[in-house]
Amino acid sequence: MFGPMSDQPHPGRPPVLVDAERAIRWTTDVFMTCGMDRADAEVVAVQLASDDLRGVMSHGLIRVSNYVQRLQTRAIDPRGRPEVVERHGGTAVVDGQNAMGQVVAAYAMGVCLDLAADCGSGSVAVRHSNHFGTCAHFAQMAVARDMIGMAATVSAGNIMAPWGAIEALLGNNPFGIAVPTATHPPLVLDISFSVAAGGKILLAAKRGDPLPSDWAIGPDGLPETEAARAAGNLLVRPVGDHKGYGLALMVAVMSALLPNAAFGREVRNMRTDFEQAQNVGHWFHAIDVKCFSDPKDFRERVDRAIDAMHSARRGPGVERILVPGELEAEVEERRRREGIPYPEALRSELNALGHSLAVGPLDDSG
Amino acid sequence: MFGPMSDQPHPGRPPVLVDAERAIRWTTDVFMTCGMDRADAEVVAVQLASDDLRGVMSHGLIRVSNYVQRLQTRAIDPRGRPEVVERHGGTAVVDGQNAMGQVVAAYAMGVCLDLAADCGSGSVAVRHSNHFGTCAHFAQMAVARDMIGMAATVSAGNIMAPWGAIEALLGNNPFGIAVPTATHPPLVLDISFSVAAGGKILLAAKRGDPLPSDWAIGPDGLPETEAARAAGNLLVRPVGDHKGYGLALMVAVMSALLPNAAFGREVRNMRTDFEQAQNVGHWFHAIDVKCFSDPKDFRERVDRAIDAMHSARRGPGVERILVPGELEAEVEERRRREGIPYPEALRSELNALGHSLAVGPLDDSG
Repeated sequence: MFGPMSDQPHPGRPPVLVDAERAIRWTTDVFMTCGMDRADAEVVAVQLASDDLRGVMSHGLIRVSNYVQRLQTRAIDPRGRPEVVERHGGTAVVDGQNAMGQVVAAYAMGVCLDLAADCGSGSVAVRHSNHFGTCAHFAQMAVARDMIGMAATVSAGNIMAPWGAIEALLGNNPFGIAVPTATHPPLVLDISFSVAAGGKILLAAKRGDPLPSDWAIGPDGLPETEAARAAGNLLVRPVGDHKGYGLALMVAVMSALLPNAAFGREVRNMRTDFEQAQNVGHWFHAIDVKCFSDPKDFRERVDRAIDAMHSARRGPGVERILVPGELEAEVEERRRREGIPYPEALRSELNALGHSLAVGPLDDSG
Repeated sequence: MFGPMSDQPHPGRPPVLVDAERAIRWTTDVFMTCGMDRADAEVVAVQLASDDLRGVMSHGLIRVSNYVQRLQTRAIDPRGRPEVVERHGGTAVVDGQNAMGQVVAAYAMGVCLDLAADCGSGSVAVRHSNHFGTCAHFAQMAVARDMIGMAATVSAGNIMAPWGAIEALLGNNPFGIAVPTATHPPLVLDISFSVAAGGKILLAAKRGDPLPSDWAIGPDGLPETEAARAAGNLLVRPVGDHKGYGLALMVAVMSALLPNAAFGREVRNMRTDFEQAQNVGHWFHAIDVKCFSDPKDFRERVDRAIDAMHSARRGPGVERILVPGELEAEVEERRRREGIPYPEALRSELNALGHSLAVGPLDDSG
């Protein structure tokens, strides 16, 4: 179902709970040691901690080490300043100037929302950016302004083959959309177009678990169920076969071909290539609800639609019917009170990183 | 793979080939007997024949009988005139006035393209419409104007349950996108968010074939592989489980909740309910490429992306790698020369219909 992907119990010592505000402060300090100014560092820290809060821990503080390495090698420019390079009507092209993806995305989505406020609909294509975290985080910026927000990006590394092929020429290219509601949490869908995330295959390989037959494709084009082999030559299977391939390709049309960002064999892997800028492309879109409907009426219609989904006759053994973003909102509410449970291995890694950068540990609990 | 779904060889007598222009003329005449004026009738006829030309025969002349029945009972208004009821910046709301869905869609997409020409991006939500054929047909209207076109609609009947449920509260809600190219045929993706179309399950039931285990869900929430049972209580399985459910729901947000069209339990089935208007909702979107990039450069980038997909290392036994819309374009080229092969059963049905409406047969070959 929808919801936290990496939020699974870990064997051994129970995870230490870290307050979200503390996680944001610590992460901001870390990125400032890499040459980022405070405001930019905080934008990144807020995305990472917010996704940990929502239980999407695959896109939270687990990313800090890789980002730090890219900043330190100047594969990412800690002082990059994204800017609008084209603007016509409700559209813009943003050049990310190789800044951190989150800094670029927050700027570009801000531009997009302003365009939508002017023209009813805003569309912003972005080049020269980097991995930005989650589509959901930026799509959600629209909701407070009575807008529907969309975000899409080319993955920062190819892990999917065109359907029928065995060569990774595409990312699983995620797409996110956030919709304002009246009393329910916002509807927030954030999915990639592979059956399973690449990270889940890597995790299964680490644990020695076999893979379900629809997660990965082997070099023979057949399902690969041995996780170690799949991890060594990552080819995730698209959802719905040719449908997921087609959707990932269309996300790339909007996010890479429209702004002229890296596509196909030009795409470099963020985890292995620290030599050059990645030229990651994004696409942001916003729709101003009030141009179509009274926003209050619309929000109530969305609430009733959610109620309808909740009320659907359930299959045997199914406790509740969820809508996109619902579980994440519940996890967030709990974690805001209780703190974020960082698994021991991640906590140790981050504490060691903090020590090496002289910003202190993420937490002091020993 | 991508491509014609219903274009399979039929046992028995070889299909009669009908010239596309003749199919359009005949279909136009048929709809004029239902009270439509010539221009509107031709808009519908062109959509139906075009999809037959492209091999998407599930959305071609096979639909004529149902449409005629809806027009004759005035469940659809043959004289309905769609109109813009809201317009702000690059956005509009169209009231379809219960006209034929194709008439509404052609009008609304025309408005959308004009908005995009003015504002760079156009967004049109539609209510009080009907089944419009295929998203691809209307999305493609954008390509000649150097635009990317998108079309989405709520299905004219519920056949999908929210993930975990066993009550059909959603359609499989198709989405289409068309992208201009330089020398390749346009990239055209048109997919619904179920693994298989409802029509394929009905066809399997007719033939007595068993279903693959991921096509349908039974009343117990488990995979239903007996086609007759699945056809009696149609619950198609979403692509990627919760992902397809989430996408179908988001298509409904744009196509039904934004314009205030029918959603959930309000949705009536076009095949069984001839009493009332359906209030089908659509969403159209267009992006004017020149606001982002020189259109020629963009078209060449799309061509290179297609070349990259074509060149991907193939899995064993795979002859070629396709991109969305490629196979349909090839089928269309052949059928424009050779004619459209209508299976005998459909041809007889249409000839009988033509006779009963005094417009003559679709073809004279006996």
